[in-house]
Parts: sequence; C-alpha cells; structure tokens
Amino acid sequence: MTGEAKKADGSGSDVSVLGLGAMGRELARALLDAGHRVTVWNRTAARAEPLVDKGALAAGSPAEAVGASPLTVVCLLDEDSVLDVLDGVELAGRDVVDLTNGTPGQARRVAELVRARGGGYLDGGIMAVPPMIGGPHAFLYYSGSERVFREYRALLDAFGAGHYKGADPGAAALWDVALLSAMYGMFGGVLHAFALVRSAGIDAREVAGDVGTWLAAMGAAAPEYARRIDTGDHTGDVVSNLGMQAAGIRNVLATAEEQGVSTALLSPLADFMRLRLAGGDHATEDLTGLVQLLAPGAELAAQPGAK
Amino acid sequence: MTGEAKKADGSGSDVSVLGLGAMGRELARALLDAGHRVTVWNRTAARAEPLVDKGALAAGSPAEAVGASPLTVVCLLDEDSVLDVLDGVELAGRDVVDLTNGTPGQARRVAELVRARGGGYLDGGIMAVPPMIGGPHAFLYYSGSERVFREYRALLDAFGAGHYKGADPGAAALWDVALLSAMYGMFGGVLHAFALVRSAGIDAREVAGDVGTWLAAMGAAAPEYARRIDTGDHTGDVVSNLGMQAAGIRNVLATAEEQGVSTALLSPLADFMRLRLAGGDHATEDLTGLVQLLAPGAELAAQPGAK
Ligand SMILES: NC(=O)c1ccc[n+]([C@@H]2O[C@H](COP(=O)([O-])OP(=O)(O)OC[C@H]3O[C@@H](n4cnc5c(N)ncnc54)[C@H](OP(=O)(O)O)[C@@H]3O)[C@@H](O)[C@H]2O)c1
Ligand SMILES: NC(=O)c1ccc[n+]([C@@H]2O[C@H](COP(=O)([O-])OP(=O)(O)OC[C@H]3O[C@@H](n4cnc5c(N)ncnc54)[C@H](OP(=O)(O)O)[C@@H]3O)[C@@H](O)[C@H]2O)c1
Repeated sequence: MTGEAKKADGSGSDVSVLGLGAMGRELARALLDAGHRVTVWNRTAARAEPLVDKGALAAGSPAEAVGASPLTVVCLLDEDSVLDVLDGVELAGRDVVDLTNGTPGQARRVAELVRARGGGYLDGGIMAVPPMIGGPHAFLYYSGSERVFREYRALLDAFGAGHYKGADPGAAALWDVALLSAMYGMFGGVLHAFALVRSAGIDAREVAGDVGTWLAAMGAAAPEYARRIDTGDHTGDVVSNLGMQAAGIRNVLATAEEQGVSTALLSPLADFMRLRLAGGDHATEDLTGLVQLLAPGAELAAQPGAK
Repeated sequence: MTGEAKKADGSGSDVSVLGLGAMGRELARALLDAGHRVTVWNRTAARAEPLVDKGALAAGSPAEAVGASPLTVVCLLDEDSVLDVLDGVELAGRDVVDLTNGTPGQARRVAELVRARGGGYLDGGIMAVPPMIGGPHAFLYYSGSERVFREYRALLDAFGAGHYKGADPGAAALWDVALLSAMYGMFGGVLHAFALVRSAGIDAREVAGDVGTWLAAMGAAAPEYARRIDTGDHTGDVVSNLGMQAAGIRNVLATAEEQGVSTALLSPLADFMRLRLAGGDHATEDLTGLVQLLAPGAELAAQPGAK
C-alpha cells in the first residue's frame, strides 16, 4: 500500500485520483469500471485498499500519483486541501481536473497556480451524491481549459453527463454553488418540517411522502420565478401574492414557537418579506420581488455584456 | 350584487363561501363546476361578480351567507380575518369548514368559538396553489369534527383529495405548516440560486431547468432523513457527511459574498452546522443530527403517548 505505485505496464496509468473520501472513491471506482488504468492516492492511505483490490495502483505521495498519469482528478474536502496536496508537485505537461467544491474565486486561484506551473486546468462541480456517480442522473459542470474538457470527455463521462460552462475557471463553481443554494434552502426547510411534526408526536416517516409530493409540486414554480426575475415582472397573473405569503410564513414561525422549534432557519425569509412590504406597494406582487433585496443589482446584471 | 342573496329556489343554497381572494374564488368555482348551488360573500363585493356570472348567489353580509347554506367554507387571509368576519354571526346548527391558513393554536381557538355558538367545525389546510384546485395534484388536510368531514366529503372532494388527521382541530394546521416550512426553505434557496446566477450575468431561465432537476434528485433524500430523525441514527452509511457539508455551505456563503448577494437566507443553516460540529464528534454524521439543535425534544417527542 505504501511506496511507489505499481505500474500495470511500463506506460503508467491513464488517470490518477487524489482524494478517496465518500466521493473520490466512487470516482475512482467508476473509472476502474470503465476499464481505465487508475492510480489512487489518499492522505489516509488505508482508504485506498478496497480500490487496490479492484485493480487500482496505489501511489505513495501526490507527486507520485500525478507523475503516473497524464490526467489527475482531484476530489478533496475543499480548495485549501487542494492547495496543500498540490504544494510542490511537478505539474508541467500534466492535466488536472479539480472536482473539489469551492467558490468561483477559489477555482480561479487554483487554475492560475496550475497554469503557472505548466499544467492544464479544468474545474468541475459534481451534481450528484456518491451513489449516483456513473448513473443516469449524475451531471457535472466543467469550466476552464476547453482542450482538457475535449481531450478527456469520454473518460469523464464515466462520472455522469458533462456540461461545459466556458473558459472562465470560476464558471462551473458558480453554477454548482447556485444549485447547492437551492438544495440547502430545501434541506433546511425539510429539517424544519420534520422537527415540527416530531414536536407534535408524529413520526417524520408519516409525513415524508407528502413533503416529497408537495416539494415536487411547488418546485414546478422555478421556471416561472426565473421568468419573473429575468424580466423584472413581479406583478402580472400572481396566484400567491406577497401579502398572503407574509401571513403564511408568520404562521409557520408562530407554529414553530408554539411547538418549541427554532425559528432561526426561516426567519430571514420572513424578514425579507416584511422589508419588501414596508418598502412600497408590493402586497400583490409575487415572491420573486425579494430578489431586489437579496441582490440589489441582480435584475440589471444579466444584460448583454454584464458580468 | 348587494342586498340579499337571490335564492335559486325556496331551499337556499348547498354551500356558502366566505372570501373570494385568489384561493376562495377557485374554491367557489370548483363547487359551481361540480353542480352545487353556491352562495358567495367577499369584503370587497366586486370580486363576487365573475362568480355570479357563473351562477353563484351573492350574499350582502357574512351572516346572510352563513344563513343561506347548511355548510360554509371560509378562506380568508388569516385567522384574525376569520374572527372578524364571523363576529356576531348566528352559527347554531351550521357547519363551518375553515380553509384559512393558521397555526394549530389558532385553529383550536376558532373551533372553540364556533362550537360554543352551536356550530360544527372542521379545519383544513389547502396543499395547492389556486390553479391546482380541482385538479389531480391538489390535496387538503382536515381535522376537527369527523361528522362534518364525512357528511361533506363528496362536496369537499371538488377541491382535491382530503386527508383527515383526527379530532384535534389543530392537527391539519400542523401538517399544513410543516409542508409550508419545507416549501419556504426551498423557495428561499431557489431565490438565492437565481440571485447568484443573475449577479454573474447569467439569466435565471438558463439555470431553472437544472435547479429543478437537482431539487428533484436531492428531494429524494427526504424519506432517509425521516428515518434517521425517527430512529436517532445519524451515523450509519452516511454519503454526505456533516464535515463536508459545512465546508460546502461555507463555499455557498463565500460565493454569495464574492457576488454581492445577501448571505442572510442560508447563514442560519451554516450556523447550525458549525454549532453541531463544535458540540462533539459529529463530523462523520448526516445533516439530520441538526434536528437535535432545531428542536431539542423532537427526537424524543414521537414516542407512544407523547404529544
Ligand atoms: N459526498 C457528497 O455528497 C458530495 C456531492 C457533491 C460534491 N462533493 C464534493 O466532493 C468533495 C469531497 O467530498 P467527500 O464527500 O468525498 O468528503 P469526505 O468523505 O469527507 O472526504 C474528504 C477527502 O478530503 C481529504 N482531505 C481533507 N483535508 C485534506 C488535507 N488537508 N489534505 C489532504 N487530504 C485532505 C480526506 O482525506 P482523509 O481520508 O485522509 O481524511 C478525504 O479524502 C468535496 O469538495 C465535496 O463538496 C461531495
Ligand atoms: N394562493 C395560494 O397559493 C394559497 C395556497 C394555499 C393556501 N392559501 C390560503 O388561502 C387563504 C387565502 O389566500 P388567497 O391567496 O386567496 O389570498 P388573497 O388573494 O390575498 O385574498 C385574501 C382574502 O381575504 C380577505 N380578507 C383579508 N382580510 C380580511 C378582513 N379583515 N375581513 C374580511 N376579509 C378579509 C380578502 O378580502 P378583500 O378582497 O376584500 O381584500 C380576500 O378575500 C390564505 O389563508 C392562504 O394562506 C393560499
């Protein structure tokens, strides 16, 4: 397990994977399943063992792993660990696909560093949990070097469908983080829902099906929300007006108080509603008007040429 | 439009509707479509006109509307408006189905008042937006008088599928508000997502499809979250551990800061994650452990006999 990566033949491996946490080991497994020769490295070396049993080669250091393949896929906790792990590693002539979650700014900094050392850099965001990797519902955003994206596209397809978002290495992270925002909002709401029913002596399992059905029905509003936000039209044909929604979320918070559940997760949305209503004649508009408070410049930002 | 409700024949109408906002008018329309004789009342009388054109009778006061039918369906802004509107109205021998959103405690208070005046009371929560009323995806929670629920079940089915949650008039509101929690969490997250992409010059419409796909995929975690919360098992087979998620949501907040988008909507969830991690050895557990902070008694609450 330690020491040099054992090479299957003289030519090294096709791809190396740095990071074998819950996600990295699924990426390595998917590459092995697709028939690639894979070198792996993880800080805690024991995590490589099940992959070696499946045919992976274990590298003793990040430098050795990067040296073993033309392409290295990186999937660590955060971009700070990526900078740690790549510190001092020879990257000239190597390509790096960094699937670690981070901000657009962090992705741009890692890209600069890799390029400054002569490597090719593609950033990526994985839109899947580990059990989805290689399945029909996994997709990934990529941005940065288009050459790297094209050259390894077939190999990367082992993870899921790839969507290239342009040469700015920060673009994939922006799309990724936008989707994570929506997900974390939903997860907070789901935890709040389950805390409420449990506080009333009802099993969360009894309610989970209805929660799913309801979220699916209400999630269908997203394209209409998007249209309103893009056009700035928050008033035509409103079926759930802000005045009513402010009363509704007050009831949510008052129920949480009645039941001894924290109101902290949903109070900020109620505050934005109140603020919007106090700011003018907005009671009959849609919830989407809140974007003007969330990001004052956002409605103007998406104009041709704006960035 | 003003004055006494015109009775179609000597026997009055089958059902009266108080409140003809976006939701109330759809309820009245669904009852008319189902062939019932319907009396309507709204504070702003002009909103009754389109329904009168479809065959509804207009009452000049709430008392007149309640007097015209054995059953009155109420759908107003909030329970305070319900108390306003029912003030001094003769309810003896009348049945009331209150579909106005409120807290469990408010529903219990309205139930007491109606019963004290000799009326039957069923509370309800509408799990649909107005365009869904009468369609296959609308459902409603009911609680309170089982007699009222059974007697008018066929009539109420015109709105959507009815789920009776027991004799406690507050039960339907609890289920309703739990689902609204999940929805408002999701809506906050979706607004955050769209604000982020707009801040980077990308139309929300370009991202809306992926947001929907992603929420549907991640919403599938709800039953597993429910199981963990019900059993208190936050550690077995975790695919997205709290340590990783805390890093992820930090990236969401840092991206919002980079982009000039408010972090207020998602900061509380990040705070709960940090607090949980600081409170012990929880880095490898699932997100569901946060319920112990959201509602300290919730995991114990859903025991036989607990309430
Ligand atoms: N799991 C998911 O649901 C999911 C979904 C989409 C995206 N992602 C992203 O995928 C990435 C990995 O997530 P994961 O679920 O695999 O997390 P994980 O199971 O917690 O694994 C974290 C990995 O990072 C390594 N690591 C952390 N700090 C390090 C450092 N300073 N130096 C070297 N290695 C370090 C760990 O090594 P040790 O084994 O030595 O600790 C481990 O390999 C994250 O960016 C995450 O946002 C995850
Ligand atoms: N729309 C939805 O998406 C939706 C979904 C599920 C549940 N609901 C629930 O349905 C109920 C009604 O919502 P909505 O969408 O119909 O709201 P809406 O369009 O704003 O209508 C509010 C209704 O309440 C009346 N009202 C308000 N204050 C009153 C008072 N003090 N006295 C008498 N009448 C008063 C209004 O009369 P005027 O016309 O005179 O102002 C109007 O009829 C709410 O409890 C809401 O939570 C709505």
